[in-house]
Amino acid sequence: MSEDPADQVHDEEEALDEAILESVLHLFDEGVHPEALEQLAELHPADQADLVSQLDEEVRTELLARFPAETLSQILAYLRDERRLELIEELSSPVLAPALDLADFDIAVDILHELPAERARETLRLMTTAADVAPLLPYADETAGGRMTSAFIALQEDWTVDQALAYLRQTAPTAEQVFYLYVTDRERHLQGVVSLREIVVASPETPVRDLMTPDVVSVRASEDQEEALRSIQRYNFIALPVVDDERRLVGVISVDDIMDVAEEEATEDMFRLAGLDEDESVIRPIGRSLLPRLVWLVVAMTSGFMAAGVVDAFDSTIDRIVAIAVFMPLIAGLGGNAGVQTVTLIVRSMALGELDLRGIRPTLQRELLIGLANGVIIGVLLAVIVFAWKGNAGLAIVAGTAILLNMVTGVTAGVLVPVSLRAVRLDPALASGALLTTFTDILGFFFFLGLATIFADQIA
Amino acid sequence: MSEDPADQVHDEEEALDEAILESVLHLFDEGVHPEALEQLAELHPADQADLVSQLDEEVRTELLARFPAETLSQILAYLRDERRLELIEELSSPVLAPALDLADFDIAVDILHELPAERARETLRLMTTAADVAPLLPYADETAGGRMTSAFIALQEDWTVDQALAYLRQTAPTAEQVFYLYVTDRERHLQGVVSLREIVVASPETPVRDLMTPDVVSVRASEDQEEALRSIQRYNFIALPVVDDERRLVGVISVDDIMDVAEEEATEDMFRLAGLDEDESVIRPIGRSLLPRLVWLVVAMTSGFMAAGVVDAFDSTIDRIVAIAVFMPLIAGLGGNAGVQTVTLIVRSMALGELDLRGIRPTLQRELLIGLANGVIIGVLLAVIVFAWKGNAGLAIVAGTAILLNMVTGVTAGVLVPVSLRAVRLDPALASGALLTTFTDILGFFFFLGLATIFADQIA
Repeated sequence: MSEDPADQVHDEEEALDEAILESVLHLFDEGVHPEALEQLAELHPADQADLVSQLDEEVRTELLARFPAETLSQILAYLRDERRLELIEELSSPVLAPALDLADFDIAVDILHELPAERARETLRLMTTAADVAPLLPYADETAGGRMTSAFIALQEDWTVDQALAYLRQTAPTAEQVFYLYVTDRERHLQGVVSLREIVVASPETPVRDLMTPDVVSVRASEDQEEALRSIQRYNFIALPVVDDERRLVGVISVDDIMDVAEEEATEDMFRLAGLDEDESVIRPIGRSLLPRLVWLVVAMTSGFMAAGVVDAFDSTIDRIVAIAVFMPLIAGLGGNAGVQTVTLIVRSMALGELDLRGIRPTLQRELLIGLANGVIIGVLLAVIVFAWKGNAGLAIVAGTAILLNMVTGVTAGVLVPVSLRAVRLDPALASGALLTTFTDILGFFFFLGLATIFADQIA
Repeated sequence: MSEDPADQVHDEEEALDEAILESVLHLFDEGVHPEALEQLAELHPADQADLVSQLDEEVRTELLARFPAETLSQILAYLRDERRLELIEELSSPVLAPALDLADFDIAVDILHELPAERARETLRLMTTAADVAPLLPYADETAGGRMTSAFIALQEDWTVDQALAYLRQTAPTAEQVFYLYVTDRERHLQGVVSLREIVVASPETPVRDLMTPDVVSVRASEDQEEALRSIQRYNFIALPVVDDERRLVGVISVDDIMDVAEEEATEDMFRLAGLDEDESVIRPIGRSLLPRLVWLVVAMTSGFMAAGVVDAFDSTIDRIVAIAVFMPLIAGLGGNAGVQTVTLIVRSMALGELDLRGIRPTLQRELLIGLANGVIIGVLLAVIVFAWKGNAGLAIVAGTAILLNMVTGVTAGVLVPVSLRAVRLDPALASGALLTTFTDILGFFFFLGLATIFADQIA
C-alpha cells in the first residue's frame, strides 16, 4: 500500500502544509496577522481546518476572532468530531451564529447538538436561519433525520412541466439538489421522483405526475442512519429522500453526507470488540478515556478470577504435576485465538448485512467444521511438541485433547455469543474478545486440568 | 439501534422478498418459467440480485440462461464479491460478454479481473465495448485506476462556451457525468474544472479556460484506492479526476464508486487484528478458510510455547507455591487486554489518517499515562482480592506489582508494535491481538514468576 511512488506526492503535500503552518505560526509570533491570514486564505478550507486545529489554543482563539463568518463556516464544515468540539467551545455565540447561518443546515444542526443545551438555544436565537434549522433539531444525531438536509427540491405532482421549470428557475437550486427532483402531493406526501432531463425534454403542458417514477425508495427520519446507508449502498443512490411517520417528505440525505457513517460504524464495532468505547480517540483527553477502559478491565478481571477459581479447584493436581502449569495458559490462549477469529467474522458479517438470523445454522456448521479440523491439526502438533519436550506421552495426549475441545468451544462461543446478543437486541460487538475468552479460559482450564486429574496416574 | 418502529418496516420488506422468493421457487418446481420471470422482473435489480443469489445452483443456471443481457448486466452490478464470483463462474463467455457490454466500464473491468485470465481474454474478445474497457484493465483492483470509470466529460480549455455546449448536447451526458466538467489541454493534461451552471450563464464567446477553476485536486491512477477515498472524504467531493503519471486525465472516480472502499479497508483491518485474512467471509468455502486460519493459530502456538518456556524456567517456584499457578493466567491476560485496547486504537487511528508518525510521541505518552493509572487501580484491586482469598500478603503484593508492570508493557507494545510495522512499510494491522499478547504473556509470566521467586520466602 505504501511502496508506490504516490507516497512521495503525499509527503510533499505534508511538507507544504508544514511549511505554511510554520510560516503562519512565525508570522503570529511577530504579530503580523494580515499576512498570515492571507497565506491561510489561499488554502482549501479542508486544509485551513487542518492547520487551524494544529495551532496553539491562544493563537487559534485570536485567529478565529479575525476570520470572516464565511471562512469560519467552511472550516467548521471540514473539521471532524473531537477537533470541531474543541473549536466551537472556544467561540462565543455571536461569533458562531453567523457562521452557522452560512453552513449547510445538517452541519449547523450537528454543531448545535454538540453545544451544551443553553449555549445551543442562545446561538439558535441569534441565527437568521433559525426557522429552517429548528425543525431538524429534534432528530437524534445517529438517525436518518439527524443526517438529512432540509435544503431539497420538491415538485408538486399536479404541476405542469412549465410550472416545474418556473419553480426551478426561481429557487435556483445547486447542482447537488437537482440530481433527483422529488415529487409530492399537496400535503407533502412523497409520491415519486423525476430527473431534470425528463422535465426538460417533456412538453410544457405535461403534468409532473405523468413523468415521475412512483414507488421511490425512502427512509424514515426516525430510523437509524445505518438504514439510510444500507439503502444508498444497496441501490447505488446519490441521494435518498427522508419521510416522517406519515410519509411526508422532510429531507434528503446525499451520499456524501452518509459516507462517514460506514467508517463510524466500523470503528464502533472494532472498538467494542477490543473493549473500548465508541468515542475513544488518540486526541481525547486522558481523563475521559480512563474510566471507560477501566470498567472494561474490571469486567475482564472478574472473568479472570472465575477462571482462577477453576485452576484453584485443581491445585492438588498441579501440585503433583508441575508441568501442567507450564502448558495451561497455552491451551486456554489458543482456544481464545480460534474464538476471536470466529467472533470477529460473525460481528463484521452481521454489521455488513451479510449474515442475518436465518443464516446462523449453516454458519455455525461451517465454524464447527473449521474449529474441528484446525483443532485436530493443532492438537496433534501440540501433543508432538509436548512429547518431544517433556517426554511424557500421557501429558501430550491430555494437552492435545484439551486444545481440540477448547478450540471447538471457542468457535461455538464465537458464533453463539454475538448471535444471542443480537437476539436480545443488543449490539453483537459487545461480544468482545475479552468476554469471549472468559469462556475459552474457564473451559480450557477445566478440560485440561480435569483430564489431567482423571489421568493423573498415567501422567505423573 | 433496533428498538425503533422502523424495524417493522424492514421486517415487512424481508417478508415480502421471502414471499416472492418462495413463489418463484415454487413456480420453477412446476416448470412455469415465464410467470416466475415476470415476478422477478418487477423488482429493483438490487432485490433481483439478492433473490437470484439465494436460488439453488441448478435453478439459477437455468434462470440466468433465460435472462436478457440487460437484466443480467444489472444483476451483476448489484451483486457483491463472493456471490458475484459464484455467479460469473456459472456463465459462459457468450452469455457474459453482452451483459458486460451493457454494464458500467468499471464494473465490467472488476468482473474481468475476477475471471481466470484465459476466460477474461475470451470474454473481452466477444465484447463490443472492448476498446473502451481494455485500457482500464492494466490497473490493479485496489488502485484508483481500478476504481475509475472512463465514461467522463472533458472539455478543452481553448474551446468557447458555445463549442462546449455543442459538445455536451452531442455527447448527451448522464446526470452523474455533468456534476463536474473537467478541462484539459489538447494533450489531455488536466487543467481545471468548471460547473455546468458556469458554462450556461457565461457568454457564448468566452473561452472555457477563463471560467474554469485551476488547481483541481486529482489522484494518480497507480495510487492506492484509499488515497482517492481520503481525498473525496477530506474535500467532500462527489467525484475526483484520475490522472496518469504525466497528469493526463484518464478517468473519474465518483463517490458511490469509492463508498465501499471505506468498509473494505475497515473489514481488512478488523480481520487482520483477529488473525483472519482479508478475504474471509461466512459464505467462503471451508477449504479456502482452513489454511489461512491455521497458519495464524500456528504462529500463536509458537509464541505460546515461548511463554511456556518462561513458565518452565520457574517450575521450582511453582512447585513450592502452587497458588502462583492460579493467578498466573489472570496477570498475563489482563496485560493482554490493556494492550489490545491500545493496539486497536492505534491501528484504527492510523487507518483513518488521524495519527501519523509525527503524532506518535504524544500518543505514547497518553497511553503510558492511561496504562499507569489503570495499572495502579487494577493492581490494588487485584492485590486486595488475592489477599482476601488466599490471606497471603506477600503473594498479593507480588501479584499487584506484576499486573501493574504488565499493563504498562501492554500499552507500550500496543503503541510500538503497529508503529514499527508502519515504519518498515508493513500493515500496522498485522500487529494483531495474538502477536501483541505474545509480549504480554511472556513478560507477564516473567514479572510475576520472577518477583515470586525473589520474594519466595515471604510468600511461601
